[in-house]
Amino acid sequence: MPQQQPHPVWRPAAGRGIRVAVACSGFKEALSPEEVAAAIAEGVRRAGPGAVAETVPVPDGGEGTAAILARATGGRLLPVTVPGPLGAPVTARFALLGGDGPRTAVVEMAAAAGLRLVPRDRRDPGVTTTFGVGRLVSAALDAGARRVLIGCGDSGTCDGGAGALCALGARLLDARGGELPPGGAALARLDRLDPAGLDRRLAGAELRVAVDPHTVLCGPRGAARVYGPQKGAGPAGVRALAAGLENWARVLARDLPGRPPGAGGAAADLRLGPGTGASGGLAAGLAALGARLVPRFELLLRHVDLDGPLARADVVITAEGSLDERTFPGKTPAEVARRARRLGRPVIALAGSVGPGWGPGEHRARECGIDVCVGVLPGPLRLEEALARSAGLVTDAAAGVTRLLLLGGRLAVPAAGGQRRREAK
Amino acid sequence: MPQQQPHPVWRPAAGRGIRVAVACSGFKEALSPEEVAAAIAEGVRRAGPGAVAETVPVPDGGEGTAAILARATGGRLLPVTVPGPLGAPVTARFALLGGDGPRTAVVEMAAAAGLRLVPRDRRDPGVTTTFGVGRLVSAALDAGARRVLIGCGDSGTCDGGAGALCALGARLLDARGGELPPGGAALARLDRLDPAGLDRRLAGAELRVAVDPHTVLCGPRGAARVYGPQKGAGPAGVRALAAGLENWARVLARDLPGRPPGAGGAAADLRLGPGTGASGGLAAGLAALGARLVPRFELLLRHVDLDGPLARADVVITAEGSLDERTFPGKTPAEVARRARRLGRPVIALAGSVGPGWGPGEHRARECGIDVCVGVLPGPLRLEEALARSAGLVTDAAAGVTRLLLLGGRLAVPAAGGQRRREAK
Repeated sequence: MPQQQPHPVWRPAAGRGIRVAVACSGFKEALSPEEVAAAIAEGVRRAGPGAVAETVPVPDGGEGTAAILARATGGRLLPVTVPGPLGAPVTARFALLGGDGPRTAVVEMAAAAGLRLVPRDRRDPGVTTTFGVGRLVSAALDAGARRVLIGCGDSGTCDGGAGALCALGARLLDARGGELPPGGAALARLDRLDPAGLDRRLAGAELRVAVDPHTVLCGPRGAARVYGPQKGAGPAGVRALAAGLENWARVLARDLPGRPPGAGGAAADLRLGPGTGASGGLAAGLAALGARLVPRFELLLRHVDLDGPLARADVVITAEGSLDERTFPGKTPAEVARRARRLGRPVIALAGSVGPGWGPGEHRARECGIDVCVGVLPGPLRLEEALARSAGLVTDAAAGVTRLLLLGGRLAVPAAGGQRRREAK
Repeated sequence: MPQQQPHPVWRPAAGRGIRVAVACSGFKEALSPEEVAAAIAEGVRRAGPGAVAETVPVPDGGEGTAAILARATGGRLLPVTVPGPLGAPVTARFALLGGDGPRTAVVEMAAAAGLRLVPRDRRDPGVTTTFGVGRLVSAALDAGARRVLIGCGDSGTCDGGAGALCALGARLLDARGGELPPGGAALARLDRLDPAGLDRRLAGAELRVAVDPHTVLCGPRGAARVYGPQKGAGPAGVRALAAGLENWARVLARDLPGRPPGAGGAAADLRLGPGTGASGGLAAGLAALGARLVPRFELLLRHVDLDGPLARADVVITAEGSLDERTFPGKTPAEVARRARRLGRPVIALAGSVGPGWGPGEHRARECGIDVCVGVLPGPLRLEEALARSAGLVTDAAAGVTRLLLLGGRLAVPAAGGQRRREAK
């Protein structure tokens, strides 16, 4: 039971309170990682003078990733207008990172094809497209990037990256030679991919896709079945998408064979290779172009100092919109907890929804090494109201957690600790 | 800001963890005070070996009051079958207390006329009656009680106690001399009360009603307007009930004048005297019979040792179904906090719903002297599901709170505290 391993005991310097590292992802459709971190830090401050916070918004490939990496490296964000998931133009930003080394861009797929860009009443991953993601990659190459990191997560699409490949010059043809319409539903009718028009610059560029390695393109745990419903697909839609992605993997393996150094080129790897299902299969499409799929934290945390703040802290607060069995493996709180525990730091997780198994001492919390999971809801709110008030709810929850830590410290301080007592009051 | 006053600092004896006093009310329509206390204590235990709990279910006049007082005094519970709020028989229990002094009974109005006894689709305080409460008082007198404590709270009625008075022998007559039907709606047609048949034993008995002194029978903050809606009355129903209670007060003052030692006999006192609105005005009807209305904790906590456990504890956990502006004044967490702070003990409140102003450091929490309010919901549950899972949710929340206290203590313990560290792990 990891949470019962002894932690190194904090030795307070005179006049110093509890130092909290805030390392969190965003809350889907509500708050970016930076907004969540700021809300938690505000709660820590509000708890009283005995606590200070250092924030590390954690890039997970989804919303906020480009901004976090731009800030962390002293780079910049460049706006580009591209077709959104339904074709209407959206203004998306990609990052050009600062620092030495080859010129590196960060493209966040959600900026061009995220679920948040699709109005709730029009959510249908059968028709949404990653075309804009391909355009962002082109824009990054236009800006001189030699290496492009593509973040997956928070997607509103399930087209296997077909749109992105079209934006980069591929043509998708049906049996009569007509071009396919956008979206995952049409992929079942795909007969062949014509690579002749693909952007020549791709050959000289390094594409790296930041993926959750637990996702796969096809099969019973494939992208359509696991993520299709939350993007708006009904049961029939899921079946159509699953069939489309199967066909897509087959055609990619045949018509874009052996492009190094992707996760595969053989159909089997595209179908079931680690991470191929990321962002509705976008990762698989990019892999067929030669992109390398890399576990997201391994790739993205090369550019963000997470371990430093964890090491400087007495306790870590992380957060995620939802802690549940289906969505959790490989998510931010697990990565934060893994690193924090390596450093002997206890971990508290805040969440909008704490699912079964995440109660104090329960098996999922134990497996992740999280000491306490705390729900942020103050009562039976409707989901819409909870989303609208999410920053304030997170702040209140963080303030409550910090107060309990300070209170526990006050209870435990022996009489000789009069100096600390005043300070931690 | 009371929560920032310094608390006496806990001095841990070697090998001793945090001692938690659990002092709580019930969660309306879900858990009795004893069930809530047990759920919290289970959470404290589950948090680890560093914490122990002592429970004090707090009688507030509502559900569970008779059982708590019977247990606390070594008394017993006697079952009686009486007409319920809709007339169908229910088995209700009243307590005969143990100990010296005059033979004392405790009648909990909710046992015979509680909201929980009215199916959701039949909730209409225009027709529900307190007749069964009067029967319970008779049964207590039958059992030899010289003093009868009547607990208000969790009622499903708004008949001003008219039903109870009928059960005790009064007759309520309309202008044509016909008897009124049960329920608050008919009271507007009341012409006179015939006291001739009233139980003679009432003259020799002491009736004490445990009330929330913030409730009044009539006027804009009267029982019909404030509590009618949650008992099932619509706007027209509320107006009818308010008119009925006005007439009831007038008739009581005229036809049962000057019965000592009630809150009044004059109509003005029955209308607006402190506590007259308790349990849909039951308190006013009993006052007109000569009962004394007493603030509930002042009356009931004579029989339960709350201060002892608070004084023995390092920290207090209290709980209430809902912390909100409308229902809070005079409720259990405020009373517990008042007593705990007098003893220098910090207070944490758990609730199914934490309303505006109850966040950490916010004004309502400060006014009550509660250090941290914690919602027990783990996510956006429907109310029905939250009620069904309430015991488990309370346990999880208590375990989380206790873990955070222990964790804070572990962080604060200086290196010399190695002995404690192992123990509190």
